[in-house]
Amino acid sequence: MIRIGVDYYPEHWDRSSWAKDIALMKQTGVTTVRIAEFAWGLMEPIEGNFDFGWLDDIIKMLGDAGIEIILGTPTNCAPLWLYRNYPETLSVERDGTRTATGLRGHRCMESPLFRKYAARIIGEMTKRYAKNLHVIAWQIDNELGANHCCCPVCAAKFREYLKARHGSLEALNHAWGADVWSGEISDWEQITPPVGQLYSYNWYNPGYLLDFHRWAEQSTTGYIQFEIDELRKAVPKKIPITTNACFAQHSMDFHQSYVALDVAAYDNYPETIYPDDPEAVYTTAAALDLMRGVKRKNFWIMEQLSGPFGCWSAMKPMPRPGQIEGYGLQCIAHGADMVLYWRWHAAIKGAETFCQGLIDHSGVPGRRFEEFAHFCKRLQSLDWLDGTVVKSPVAILYGATQMDAFSIQTQSEGFDYWEQLKRWQNAFGGLGVNTDIIHETADLSGYKVVVVPSHFVTNPVTVQNITSFVMNGGTVILTPRTGVKDEDNGCLLAPLPGAFAELAGCTVEEYDPIGKRDVGIDWAGENLTATVWCDVLRPTTGRALAAYTTEFYAGKPAIVENTFCSGTVLSAGVCGKKPLLRKLAKAALDSQQVKYWDTLPEGVQCTTRESADGSVKGRFLFNETAQIQSFVLAGESITLAPCEMKIDRI
Amino acid sequence: MIRIGVDYYPEHWDRSSWAKDIALMKQTGVTTVRIAEFAWGLMEPIEGNFDFGWLDDIIKMLGDAGIEIILGTPTNCAPLWLYRNYPETLSVERDGTRTATGLRGHRCMESPLFRKYAARIIGEMTKRYAKNLHVIAWQIDNELGANHCCCPVCAAKFREYLKARHGSLEALNHAWGADVWSGEISDWEQITPPVGQLYSYNWYNPGYLLDFHRWAEQSTTGYIQFEIDELRKAVPKKIPITTNACFAQHSMDFHQSYVALDVAAYDNYPETIYPDDPEAVYTTAAALDLMRGVKRKNFWIMEQLSGPFGCWSAMKPMPRPGQIEGYGLQCIAHGADMVLYWRWHAAIKGAETFCQGLIDHSGVPGRRFEEFAHFCKRLQSLDWLDGTVVKSPVAILYGATQMDAFSIQTQSEGFDYWEQLKRWQNAFGGLGVNTDIIHETADLSGYKVVVVPSHFVTNPVTVQNITSFVMNGGTVILTPRTGVKDEDNGCLLAPLPGAFAELAGCTVEEYDPIGKRDVGIDWAGENLTATVWCDVLRPTTGRALAAYTTEFYAGKPAIVENTFCSGTVLSAGVCGKKPLLRKLAKAALDSQQVKYWDTLPEGVQCTTRESADGSVKGRFLFNETAQIQSFVLAGESITLAPCEMKIDRI
Amino acid sequence: MIRIGVDYYPEHWDRSSWAKDIALMKQTGVTTVRIAEFAWGLMEPIEGNFDFGWLDDIIKMLGDAGIEIILGTPTNCAPLWLYRNYPETLSVERDGTRTATGLRGHRCMESPLFRKYAARIIGEMTKRYAKNLHVIAWQIDNELGANHCCCPVCAAKFREYLKARHGSLEALNHAWGADVWSGEISDWEQITPPVGQLYSYNWYNPGYLLDFHRWAEQSTTGYIQFEIDELRKAVPKKIPITTNACFAQHSMDFHQSYVALDVAAYDNYPETIYPDDPEAVYTTAAALDLMRGVKRKNFWIMEQLSGPFGCWSAMKPMPRPGQIEGYGLQCIAHGADMVLYWRWHAAIKGAETFCQGLIDHSGVPGRRFEEFAHFCKRLQSLDWLDGTVVKSPVAILYGATQMDAFSIQTQSEGFDYWEQLKRWQNAFGGLGVNTDIIHETADLSGYKVVVVPSHFVTNPVTVQNITSFVMNGGTVILTPRTGVKDEDNGCLLAPLPGAFAELAGCTVEEYDPIGKRDVGIDWAGENLTATVWCDVLRPTTGRALAAYTTEFYAGKPAIVENTFCSGTVLSAGVCGKKPLLRKLAKAALDSQQVKYWDTLPEGVQCTTRESADGSVKGRFLFNETAQIQSFVLAGESITLAPCEMKIDRI
Repeated sequence: MIRIGVDYYPEHWDRSSWAKDIALMKQTGVTTVRIAEFAWGLMEPIEGNFDFGWLDDIIKMLGDAGIEIILGTPTNCAPLWLYRNYPETLSVERDGTRTATGLRGHRCMESPLFRKYAARIIGEMTKRYAKNLHVIAWQIDNELGANHCCCPVCAAKFREYLKARHGSLEALNHAWGADVWSGEISDWEQITPPVGQLYSYNWYNPGYLLDFHRWAEQSTTGYIQFEIDELRKAVPKKIPITTNACFAQHSMDFHQSYVALDVAAYDNYPETIYPDDPEAVYTTAAALDLMRGVKRKNFWIMEQLSGPFGCWSAMKPMPRPGQIEGYGLQCIAHGADMVLYWRWHAAIKGAETFCQGLIDHSGVPGRRFEEFAHFCKRLQSLDWLDGTVVKSPVAILYGATQMDAFSIQTQSEGFDYWEQLKRWQNAFGGLGVNTDIIHETADLSGYKVVVVPSHFVTNPVTVQNITSFVMNGGTVILTPRTGVKDEDNGCLLAPLPGAFAELAGCTVEEYDPIGKRDVGIDWAGENLTATVWCDVLRPTTGRALAAYTTEFYAGKPAIVENTFCSGTVLSAGVCGKKPLLRKLAKAALDSQQVKYWDTLPEGVQCTTRESADGSVKGRFLFNETAQIQSFVLAGESITLAPCEMKIDRI
Repeated sequence: MIRIGVDYYPEHWDRSSWAKDIALMKQTGVTTVRIAEFAWGLMEPIEGNFDFGWLDDIIKMLGDAGIEIILGTPTNCAPLWLYRNYPETLSVERDGTRTATGLRGHRCMESPLFRKYAARIIGEMTKRYAKNLHVIAWQIDNELGANHCCCPVCAAKFREYLKARHGSLEALNHAWGADVWSGEISDWEQITPPVGQLYSYNWYNPGYLLDFHRWAEQSTTGYIQFEIDELRKAVPKKIPITTNACFAQHSMDFHQSYVALDVAAYDNYPETIYPDDPEAVYTTAAALDLMRGVKRKNFWIMEQLSGPFGCWSAMKPMPRPGQIEGYGLQCIAHGADMVLYWRWHAAIKGAETFCQGLIDHSGVPGRRFEEFAHFCKRLQSLDWLDGTVVKSPVAILYGATQMDAFSIQTQSEGFDYWEQLKRWQNAFGGLGVNTDIIHETADLSGYKVVVVPSHFVTNPVTVQNITSFVMNGGTVILTPRTGVKDEDNGCLLAPLPGAFAELAGCTVEEYDPIGKRDVGIDWAGENLTATVWCDVLRPTTGRALAAYTTEFYAGKPAIVENTFCSGTVLSAGVCGKKPLLRKLAKAALDSQQVKYWDTLPEGVQCTTRESADGSVKGRFLFNETAQIQSFVLAGESITLAPCEMKIDRI
Repeated sequence: MIRIGVDYYPEHWDRSSWAKDIALMKQTGVTTVRIAEFAWGLMEPIEGNFDFGWLDDIIKMLGDAGIEIILGTPTNCAPLWLYRNYPETLSVERDGTRTATGLRGHRCMESPLFRKYAARIIGEMTKRYAKNLHVIAWQIDNELGANHCCCPVCAAKFREYLKARHGSLEALNHAWGADVWSGEISDWEQITPPVGQLYSYNWYNPGYLLDFHRWAEQSTTGYIQFEIDELRKAVPKKIPITTNACFAQHSMDFHQSYVALDVAAYDNYPETIYPDDPEAVYTTAAALDLMRGVKRKNFWIMEQLSGPFGCWSAMKPMPRPGQIEGYGLQCIAHGADMVLYWRWHAAIKGAETFCQGLIDHSGVPGRRFEEFAHFCKRLQSLDWLDGTVVKSPVAILYGATQMDAFSIQTQSEGFDYWEQLKRWQNAFGGLGVNTDIIHETADLSGYKVVVVPSHFVTNPVTVQNITSFVMNGGTVILTPRTGVKDEDNGCLLAPLPGAFAELAGCTVEEYDPIGKRDVGIDWAGENLTATVWCDVLRPTTGRALAAYTTEFYAGKPAIVENTFCSGTVLSAGVCGKKPLLRKLAKAALDSQQVKYWDTLPEGVQCTTRESADGSVKGRFLFNETAQIQSFVLAGESITLAPCEMKIDRI
């Protein structure tokens, strides 16, 4: 069953409205709601005094109406009394001061005292609801990020991590190159998190920072495990536990964090107004493919756009007609089996007052709600999708380590690791080809084409996997800044792309970080454009496919193709603009005789879901532009309104 | 008598120059000077040791020359020894540290110790000068703002304020919606001013912040009362006491602060170079109308532009020819009965060295001084204006609470509450119609048209007043973001414009915060443009006057007119550009048969002053543009040079 | 001998590579390397335990190969153990906290404890290497700036400085105008460095800040003297000691710092991509002329661009073909007798990993290395330049005090003191005329033309020198913001240009800080353009050469020429764009019958070196543009590739 529903905050509304809310949910087609993830203060208003009456009631009312419940552990926001009574439960910011209360997520995830209280509230919740039949899943905390806390507890944990990773100070100093600028560590206690006035990460030792990022991600994974352990003391195995991911400044390492969880969940907030720049890739399709790729199975949307952001900054334009339904279906098209809209009602108090819900402050359901209701109805006719999954001939590799390393050392103005992945997903999705965005160490069997965007910090497993994949006949696309670093974030002493050079059949003669400038490329007579970075390639066993037409390296190779055993490697020395990426994607697909649609307009993507045995197959055509798009697909003339999703059982 | 003069700092100049200065003042036509507001250090160079010799002398010299004196209490800048000896007299910044000395206004207004010293210096001054016949008024402190100090004393005062306002923690928690993110207060001591790393106000609970702003404004009012009390121990009732207001990041609540004062005074620093954008409203006319509206009587200019700012940043271009005189007359046109230019001499030391005076550093009076002298002479021929006041058929409502609430929660990119008021003043002033900018709870009798710009936080008195006003036949203009909030800054659970919906004869079907994008409007065949915000209106008893022509709500009403009892309500769903505002202003005036001039070019405003009995009336025509403007007014061809003011007794 | 070489960090590379490195250096033509300036941690890994084995070895290996060595004292970066064991050796930032370790230069230069350890490590080094025949010079610390430390030790030193400078608190208060805003100092202990939240310098008393800058520069000079003293305990007099200057936020006062040093050295990092704006002056020629002017003799380049910056921010585009060699020769053309490229190898660890070296991370010498090798070869044919120097008919005056004062009080948007100097150098250099940039108090004998750009803080020695120079028949160019201040950074009470008014034959009637606006100038029928600042001049004994054509002062003089005794003074009231500066430069040269080339295209400069007796003379023609430039010089048709340097013995 594909679930649909909302995030619901009954605790902020008069109890008299609950029955009306639930009746409207039921009538609209809501199957599932998430509740309680911020309500610790109401559950434990005074230290050790618990009040679950209100939660008992709402769970019963929802359950009686046949609505499934996902319960959140409320550990993102401990009650204010905890922070005021025990300030050591607050995290420490990079300026060395305790996190100011007033927002959310103030708690230090590693604080033993915080964990004591967190375990107790989780225990109280599970005591009551673990066996409740209406509670179909648990969500841990909220939108967890890597734990960048700089408190003494975390400092000590960070040092423990370093001891375990490097063994000795000698090894640590060597790994970091700590002797640069006389930074040798001679006592473990000399090491702290990056606290102080050096707010730009570019100023620190990159080995040190990468280890700190790794520790911060591991700390969050440990925190998730702590909550899983507390929940599983009472929650039966068949009830899934998840947490809701989002992209933020310091995202957690999704592939590490979700390992012990039962399902991946994502908070999806796409754009409401599309940028004018035709080169912009604004779709969240890549994020959805990543979330599906994390556990390589269908996933959930725990929060879906209902209105524009309007809390941390000015309100943005409202979702345009079609976006409430279209974006929901886009999630399903990419493998979501549940879509919960954030949120039922717009909040009337608190900092997120103007982050809209499906129902406005007025309480009168309007255009956005009607569209949600239409989506609920439409979903009922899509029950043949139950059990279908997304099968992809193309994999795009992702690593949190790469994300971290690029955030530590900016390579060129305009260079953005995640942006590169989005552009590759867009290139393939625009050809109607499904892509899995998977971890860089994942098994590659079954794929035809693997894209390796900027594999900066060399992971030996990736090198091995990619080599095997090519030897077994696969096609690989390599891009700039690949094979640059060792695992300690030091530069490798070898011609680029380092460990991939033999596979690539070329080396980088020199490079030019051109930033936001453009560079011309000639590919078999076609004039193309790239930007941000230029590797001047020197073929060894490979042959040049395309050459620069501008800058002092005009005439030199920009793209090289190499045949290695029975496989093919396409090395791109540049960050291509859309036509260049599309041409590369087609070349890769052609090399593997993978079929694609070459008639989709830019901004229209086509994906498919199918049953394990292939007997059921659905095709999703989504127009993610603000214009009507008309085109011919397989002989059929198709016209799609802005944000219209066409679903065909094929 | 309309007074003219300067702000004068004899203490920074060699005593030998005083007589020459005074002679030149007298010869030029100066009637009044303000002195002493920063000279505490010279009055009390050592704790408890007073030296008033220099002040006795200059007061005597000025008085002997027949020049009136306004004395400032020097409490804005306590001597450095006070801060160094008693650091608790320094205010605390939002980062939690004591305010760094070196600038000015470092003192905590609530500090009991500071007040002890402040009372003593005021006592010493009044002991000497309270009965001095040449001292015609006192100014309290300097450019006071709302007291955003975060020190422990202020924290305690803030808590007292909250106790008085909300009564109980239960009520407080409910008012703020503190249960959002588990922020429930369980002990008053848990509450602090907004100190910490959350520098963006958008991150805090809006109920909490609005109460903090209210407290900060009340604290300043209390500080003013403290100084009034100290002054009135000796200063006779007939001698007026004022303070000099300015617009700044955290302005005081003018309507609250001026209640106990005898006259409102303003520091007026208009632009010297006008922006190229034809939509920009750069005039300070609205500020002048507000200052007059604060006490609904004529006001004073305590500081008037003599040269460009040049201290906190690079020097700006010099006042253009006409601006010294023209801007001074503009103040009078809007009801000023005194204009003091800041300052006589440019400073030769200190951080404000390049904030110019009428006389340059050279000591040689130049172009700007000559223009000032010309103004002084011209004023002597305007004695028939004595006793005249500004009478306005139009009121524009203002509330510091709205200003605060919008600063806490930005509604849309480009939305600015005060900017909206300026635009409405400009629309009416450009039609030759006087406007009073008055408090949102002020009595509305006597007005024909009332503009209610973005009455965001619903004030029941305003609702009552506006309703009565319309029922009695008045015309009201409503604009976006009206009726959104309750008095605790929570959202109201009703269709917008909330408490005004019946009056408006329409509700807001949905809204779209379009930010800096433009939207088209068709009003009876005329194509107009609006921006920033779009309310899609749904008429109930009203009728659509204008409809959107762009976005997905094209064809839906943008402006609705409603007849309510014998009155008229015009509801604008948008922030109009100039032609739209002008058309709305004309529609409102037409509905009340108020006459206006439709031939004034943009940038030319016309205002009037008249005697109580109407026997004397003056018309002021001011060209606030950089171009010569020619136009016909009542059959007369008029040409005005840039910044020329034409004054006619009519 | 003109030396060429590299900065070398053998300590970060495997010892096995040393021999290969040295062989390649030797083969390429490297004569000199700088080493060891950041290696304290390796020399003293544990407090008091020294390890010089590695340094002994590399020095021996280099020496054996006949490569000269410059040794750096490693005091810029003390070992981490020093800071952790003795936090008081860390400097204090403007926010009052100890400098965060992790970058470099953390040490407080005044800390007695730091100096104790610094003296010891210098002693250990000199004990070993002072008499080493291969060590041809010593470099002190690294890229020293003015010491803006805010620690208690520095606060006390600053107070001592003020006592010595002003004698009494009374004098100090008067000098600063401390009575403005009641800031009178009544106890020396009340004075601190500018620590606190007032991050904008524009907010402080300018007299106080200028004295702090002066102290900070003197502190650095004292620190240099401390190291000289420690070095000279063992280093023979014939071995020169220097330090490597760079321009930074708080540069040291070069003229003061280099006095006790034997030679000036500079770190030269020119642009790789030129801005599109034709008005931009991007050449580092002025910096080179300043470095030569500091001691008025040939200088060294201690660090020269090998690749783009890529550590504190994104990597920039790579040096274009010709820039490695061309920029190196440009240094020589301006008087450098040594050019060391920073650095041999790109770093593989640490924050500067992507600040490239001549050899890329790959270890494979590429295009940039080949160009360096070509330069080494070419230099061998230029041995006839040995002993030649640059002789200039034109001097441009510079003062660190002016730089400081303008950084304290921004005069106009776009006004930049150093930018003005660069523009003047560019004007003369583009006419093929050598310029010395010398201290504002330097002896002027021998020059024909002296440019005095914005002599803001009046130095009596400068006034005397300039007056004598003009009286003796010289030509002087004066520019805006001259003669404004006294030495305490207070404004002078006299018509501008103050002490220069009689020389100028004009005064400033008024001024207009127009910022980034343009103003038109008519000079004998030629239409020219200026910007940033407009002095409206009033000739006294002078005559107007050019007048404004725009703004309200159109028709009034913008440039005035005055004959004073047998000399000429050209006063420019504006910051001219390039054609205006060129015309002014030509007028000045014409007045002295100095010959120049009027056929060089913009961006091409011509300079000369010659032997003392004039028997040897070389002419350097450098195309510092991205285009090929063709022109005729003295009848010869010349074509220069981008960054090509043509050298002729003439």
